[in-house]
Amino acid sequence: MTRIGLDAMGGDFAPQAAVEGAVMALNEIKADSRIVLFGNKEAIIAELEKHQVDQSRFDIVHTSEVIEMGDHPAQAFQKKTDSSITVGFKYLAEGKIDGFASAGSTGAMMVGSVHVIRVIDGVIRPTIATAIPTISKGKVLLLDIGLNVDCKPEVLEQYALIGSIYAESVYGIPSPRVALLNIGEEEAKGNAQSKAAHLLMKESAEKGLYNFVGNVESSYLFTGKICDVAVMDGFVGNTVLKLCEGLYAINRKMGSVNQFWDGMNYESAGGTPVLGINAPVTIGHGKSTPLAIKNMILSTENTILSQLTQKLKHAFKTESSLQ
Amino acid sequence: MTRIGLDAMGGDFAPQAAVEGAVMALNEIKADSRIVLFGNKEAIIAELEKHQVDQSRFDIVHTSEVIEMGDHPAQAFQKKTDSSITVGFKYLAEGKIDGFASAGSTGAMMVGSVHVIRVIDGVIRPTIATAIPTISKGKVLLLDIGLNVDCKPEVLEQYALIGSIYAESVYGIPSPRVALLNIGEEEAKGNAQSKAAHLLMKESAEKGLYNFVGNVESSYLFTGKICDVAVMDGFVGNTVLKLCEGLYAINRKMGSVNQFWDGMNYESAGGTPVLGINAPVTIGHGKSTPLAIKNMILSTENTILSQLTQKLKHAFKTESSLQ
Repeated sequence: MTRIGLDAMGGDFAPQAAVEGAVMALNEIKADSRIVLFGNKEAIIAELEKHQVDQSRFDIVHTSEVIEMGDHPAQAFQKKTDSSITVGFKYLAEGKIDGFASAGSTGAMMVGSVHVIRVIDGVIRPTIATAIPTISKGKVLLLDIGLNVDCKPEVLEQYALIGSIYAESVYGIPSPRVALLNIGEEEAKGNAQSKAAHLLMKESAEKGLYNFVGNVESSYLFTGKICDVAVMDGFVGNTVLKLCEGLYAINRKMGSVNQFWDGMNYESAGGTPVLGINAPVTIGHGKSTPLAIKNMILSTENTILSQLTQKLKHAFKTESSLQ
Repeated sequence: MTRIGLDAMGGDFAPQAAVEGAVMALNEIKADSRIVLFGNKEAIIAELEKHQVDQSRFDIVHTSEVIEMGDHPAQAFQKKTDSSITVGFKYLAEGKIDGFASAGSTGAMMVGSVHVIRVIDGVIRPTIATAIPTISKGKVLLLDIGLNVDCKPEVLEQYALIGSIYAESVYGIPSPRVALLNIGEEEAKGNAQSKAAHLLMKESAEKGLYNFVGNVESSYLFTGKICDVAVMDGFVGNTVLKLCEGLYAINRKMGSVNQFWDGMNYESAGGTPVLGINAPVTIGHGKSTPLAIKNMILSTENTILSQLTQKLKHAFKTESSLQ
């Protein structure tokens, strides 16, 4: 039995959008998966009734508080002990659910990820990732997309390993091609950080940790020809992501949308996984629609079933033994 | 009389594309402007004859050598004393031409810019810039787009001033809105570099040096609503530029091109100005078409006529007196 936890109170349109997304997901999750909703029981049931769905298909964990967007994440996480996010993380830490997703406070989700679920032994810094579309139908995993800036080269090197394992387990790409985002193809190009990271990745690849294909320039990210995973500092990754979002919005407004650009839609992305921690956690966009919530539930389920956490733990044990 | 120097031997399709571009520009330059072509006289005349143009409308400075893409820029610049680029810079330094443009070796163009024309007193590092389109019809100047990585905050602060003066003189935007590219709107967001640069820009704005409007996230660059100039480290700028190029190429291949996306076409950009040096220098794309060359000539003329160099010199004199 797989238990996927969802914060029913998270997001700008909660609980409506969250509950509706959960109802939509019911038809797509595996037969032995269950969705566990955290939030105000009365409000959740009221929403479920709108959809004429068999309520027994959900587990509901009643919580009386909500961490609001304006709250200080760390303080609220501690003080609002009966908030949907705080209780969700408690359940996740105790193994009562196998993964937790929320479109609520990103800050509070990170507090729970780092302080309750904790970083996997050997991982210097956790990371957040997303996928962008390519014209060859596949996708490219970008990490870090904004959690860590001023990354040490060693941190970027670890992101290569994390990204490789994620792309292999969750996307099912065998021996994913991992590249370092850089401003030139040659090894010696880039800034101090990327030059040093390139050398470290090369070493790790020689040890067989992953399939490092060298640098990728941003112009080639969308071709799908160079890499399946692109590693970058969170400042650059966040800039890349937001640039794509901005151009997607413009294209959409102009009516020039197609399959490629549709792949930029956050709703289909299924939220942002927090990687390098001891359980699957997914963070959704604050403005998540029911469709976005549905996809976030499915991607969280997928991450659970892929045994990503176990694989990451194993890999970092192996990596440390190789040092 | 304005004399615009053009390297007729520069670019993948020289001298054909360069000369054709010069012929196209003839009808658009001012009545008292002249184009001075540097290169093999015989080859240039052979090209001019193809276009049945009055050759007396050009000045031709015969040069016997060409700096090739494979050459080491600094060495070739020194050794090939009769190359079109080396001679072009000599003419520029001596005031025999008022600006110089080439689609040839970027490295050699930078050597000439820094070592022959030299950096304006007070400027820490020169920079290269480009414009991206906005949906509000205007454009946004991005700098630096790849010349300087690991920029000190002081360098970014100067780019704000340089960009402001450029946008005002060359684009004719009064009191241009200058923003710092960052990963959050709030002052305290970003990496160590952007946080420090933000504070410096704020101080300079308080002194009246330019109109600093704070941070801009990459998602808002194309709206035109936030800024006319966006300052960033060369690593980030080059990534932004190449991402735009990659997406432009995809959109074009997919046939979904419109006025906004046309603005991403390097051919209409008119080359990349080198800013912060003692004369107007423009570097074109290696693959420049005649149209790209034509626009590069016009943007170089525009830069000369705007008296950008004089304005930059004046501003850095003033800035140093304010310290």
